[in-house]
Amino acid sequence: MPDDTPKDAATEMISDDLVAFADHLADTARDLALRCFRQQLEVEYKSDDTPVTTVDREIEQALRQQVADAYPAHSFIGEEFGPQDTESPWSWVVDPIDGTKSFITGKPTFGSLIALLHERTPVLGVIEIPALKERWVGNADRGTTCNHTTCRTSDTTMLADATLYATTPDMFSASEQKRFDHLSQATCFRVFGADCYAYGLLAAGHVDLVAEADMAPHDFLALVPVVEGAGGIITNWQGNPLDLHSSGQVLAAANTVLHEQALARLDPTAVL
Amino acid sequence: MPDDTPKDAATEMISDDLVAFADHLADTARDLALRCFRQQLEVEYKSDDTPVTTVDREIEQALRQQVADAYPAHSFIGEEFGPQDTESPWSWVVDPIDGTKSFITGKPTFGSLIALLHERTPVLGVIEIPALKERWVGNADRGTTCNHTTCRTSDTTMLADATLYATTPDMFSASEQKRFDHLSQATCFRVFGADCYAYGLLAAGHVDLVAEADMAPHDFLALVPVVEGAGGIITNWQGNPLDLHSSGQVLAAANTVLHEQALARLDPTAVL
Repeated sequence: MPDDTPKDAATEMISDDLVAFADHLADTARDLALRCFRQQLEVEYKSDDTPVTTVDREIEQALRQQVADAYPAHSFIGEEFGPQDTESPWSWVVDPIDGTKSFITGKPTFGSLIALLHERTPVLGVIEIPALKERWVGNADRGTTCNHTTCRTSDTTMLADATLYATTPDMFSASEQKRFDHLSQATCFRVFGADCYAYGLLAAGHVDLVAEADMAPHDFLALVPVVEGAGGIITNWQGNPLDLHSSGQVLAAANTVLHEQALARLDPTAVL
Repeated sequence: MPDDTPKDAATEMISDDLVAFADHLADTARDLALRCFRQQLEVEYKSDDTPVTTVDREIEQALRQQVADAYPAHSFIGEEFGPQDTESPWSWVVDPIDGTKSFITGKPTFGSLIALLHERTPVLGVIEIPALKERWVGNADRGTTCNHTTCRTSDTTMLADATLYATTPDMFSASEQKRFDHLSQATCFRVFGADCYAYGLLAAGHVDLVAEADMAPHDFLALVPVVEGAGGIITNWQGNPLDLHSSGQVLAAANTVLHEQALARLDPTAVL
């Protein structure tokens, strides 16, 4: 059946070269992370009390340089060193190590997140999990692959059958915790502690929902094309799309039917 | 320097044959778990609302049979089918899949736990993590190995520098949550979501503390020789040793100095 939906120009423009380049960035991040994983690390604490290692900074600097060399017109926004703006509609947004606390303590669920944005909208995303040798690459038109094999979200459509992930309850404010609990109670069960890996598991059909908060753009922009390319949906807790100017809450669901039920359970008027 | 401490007869009795047999049990558990990991699973919910799969039962039945064949005099106590008592001072205690919620949702931190007890005291322990290809085997005298290489706990002795793990806050009662929070506040940071793998990470020196609750003997007996053989200490939240008749709270620490500070922070009179 021919698809009559007009395609977004930006997703059309995601060339093989751009995908190969994103893969190359992920290779670099992986190699640098694995060189130091479970080794003695220098850890500092940032003003928000989250840890950062020299590896976080090394990865971000390396990727920034590779983008500058290959696509000098593109902008680059990293967690550790901030934005480097250009006039181009294209920007790369990188979280060099998502799950630094896991990384520091030897838990292999940490990952590197790489997003390519066109006019503030994420159009290509990579979730690279170095220690588990798993990499998701996603784009709404091309679909999502895990280690080069196409993957799809689950077809669970009843909230009571759905499994729910979040990295830690420490990311929730008191009212967010109540809303997350209200959602949890309607699901099959909830599991904590997977960092960005949870969204990969959702894209691969193993997890049905992820609900998180206190997230910055570098934490979620790469997740958007991965989740959407696999058939899922990802928004904030109001159901709005995520872009460079979003912040805070993220809800990813295997499909729109689950997403709608989860949003209703997260609705503060239903809870507070 | 010669060690004049009289050794416990039971740990002396842990022969190479018994260690090889425990390894063989772990091989069986690993193969059965991996055959079904990330495949379509039949999941049931037990009376306590925790999930169980056909794989949990298959692993337990297989291990029970192998013990019956090799050591017919030994008792066998499994999570799913309960105890099979004999007059022997030796018992095997097995949790076929610790972290069933992780197993069901594709997260590779789940494991199989195998303990050998002498007179109710754990003297040999195995933490087998099938999907991560990591296996800890521990005994107080022989030491602890991870994939056949000797491992040691960390030498962190300041609570402020220590990292803390727990699988989920859902395992805590309201008063336990307050005590756990009180401990957390004194540490470097806390991470959720590693199942039994957290104790392996502690034995390997990556994590400094694990504090959990709502644990049954099959959940913790295998951890005792692994943690102690690596130089750590593991007790309940009152500092008492864990045996077949313990239940509930577990505190594992990299060393006695950290353990003492953690116990003081968990003391209910200091918190409630």
